[in-house]
Amino acid sequence: MRLGIADIGARRTLIAQRDGAVVAIEDAALPVDPLAILLDPALRAKAAAAIAAAQPVDEAKLHYALPMASVGKIVCVGLNYADHAAESPYDKPAFPVFFLRTITGLIGHGAPIIRPLISEHLDFEAEMVAVIGKGGRRIAEERALDHVIAYSLFNDGSIRDWQFKGPQWTLGKNFDDTGPFGPFLVSADEVPPGGRGLRITTRLNGAVVQDANTNDLLFHIPELIAKVSEAMTLHPGDILVTGTPAGVGFARKPPLFMKAGDVCEVEVQGIGVLRNPIIDEVRA
Amino acid sequence: MRLGIADIGARRTLIAQRDGAVVAIEDAALPVDPLAILLDPALRAKAAAAIAAAQPVDEAKLHYALPMASVGKIVCVGLNYADHAAESPYDKPAFPVFFLRTITGLIGHGAPIIRPLISEHLDFEAEMVAVIGKGGRRIAEERALDHVIAYSLFNDGSIRDWQFKGPQWTLGKNFDDTGPFGPFLVSADEVPPGGRGLRITTRLNGAVVQDANTNDLLFHIPELIAKVSEAMTLHPGDILVTGTPAGVGFARKPPLFMKAGDVCEVEVQGIGVLRNPIIDEVRA
Repeated sequence: MRLGIADIGARRTLIAQRDGAVVAIEDAALPVDPLAILLDPALRAKAAAAIAAAQPVDEAKLHYALPMASVGKIVCVGLNYADHAAESPYDKPAFPVFFLRTITGLIGHGAPIIRPLISEHLDFEAEMVAVIGKGGRRIAEERALDHVIAYSLFNDGSIRDWQFKGPQWTLGKNFDDTGPFGPFLVSADEVPPGGRGLRITTRLNGAVVQDANTNDLLFHIPELIAKVSEAMTLHPGDILVTGTPAGVGFARKPPLFMKAGDVCEVEVQGIGVLRNPIIDEVRA
Repeated sequence: MRLGIADIGARRTLIAQRDGAVVAIEDAALPVDPLAILLDPALRAKAAAAIAAAQPVDEAKLHYALPMASVGKIVCVGLNYADHAAESPYDKPAFPVFFLRTITGLIGHGAPIIRPLISEHLDFEAEMVAVIGKGGRRIAEERALDHVIAYSLFNDGSIRDWQFKGPQWTLGKNFDDTGPFGPFLVSADEVPPGGRGLRITTRLNGAVVQDANTNDLLFHIPELIAKVSEAMTLHPGDILVTGTPAGVGFARKPPLFMKAGDVCEVEVQGIGVLRNPIIDEVRA
């Protein structure tokens, strides 16, 4: 089941992907909240029936919102593919490198990524997302996948010169309108366990710039969940953004950054395509 | 005006500090939400009258909650006193070093800081907090203090060995029950502009272990607000945790970490005292 949220005109609407088409679900018994539906077997059954009966909508008429009514902690992982760690200024990590994004920077599928006037170093990062459905602390690695209810896509857009202004990446990872997330939550039953074995790619204006496989994650989702939950309680709605492979723009010679007019697509096989245009910041 | 939130029995209650005593405010017209009151002149006037008329409560009968009904982004600043940067493994920063904490790790005044079983490196960090009352992006330094509605205290409790497991401090700064915040939001009119010139101290079991002055911040609050808001929109309820001076436990020879039975007090002159006992994690 692939559920999302979109604005159709002024109406916030539950949407789903069915056989590659987008359908709008108009059923007052279903909350406009994909996570709440996935978490509740009765709602899930109702949603399955509603999806089968729903009408396709013209994608040009909808604006995608984030695929969750409320996003919890946004726990990201850096340097989590060996080839990307090798192209970065950092050593290959012996322990997963976590950092946090905040909700302020996130945008939906199709919304513009905004390049700020103060930097030309706007970079892309294709990532697979694991959505936590069942919370917990000190979750055992062997049981960790029981806590993942869905998968999705993230483009961990980064302002590289700000990311590297000092020892912490925080600002460069948290510019407004740089973190596309979606288009859908894809229920875990539609994805191989732990999201393994999936091709992950980025295309910038149609040219493939990242191309790897999620098998190459240094730390897979169960270990990430175990490690992060040693420190902090995970709650339903928290998301784990699992890291990007080689090919990012700042590591290229010459560097390849995103600019106004570009279109960036992140794809993970079986999870979908997350596409966003790039525009320049306009100051009043 | 010094407003907080506490549980008295099972009742979540608005509290205030009046002449050093704690009073409980029982007025259905006032939300149990200090920020909402400070933001609304009419509620503020009503609260002032209610505080004057309220009865003192026995502090032993109340459990402090966080001093905000809802905490937004928790933007922290590292290495923001020269003497602390000098005692750390890092260079004195040329640009403020921001990192994020999440709500999961925060506790109120009086609640126990929990030392996890997996580490003995539980450290204290006295910090002054600026609470954002008026949001914005690209806030000019000269106008930044107009965006601060209140001040408070934070003990940026850190699990040092986890903080330094890799290049990002995230996990060591985000253990559950390691981030005391409170006891009160102190309205900005009760504090010198920008919180300057205030003695900041930590006492561990009564012994002074950090002792500095907020004048010694490398980057003062207006500059911090200007810099962070270049990247991300600030919203009312976001908090800025401004950094700690020298004297933290891991930099001492021998190191001084907190352990069960200790009591840690963070004080900033005119803002208050934030006191928390330390206990060991108990696993089921």
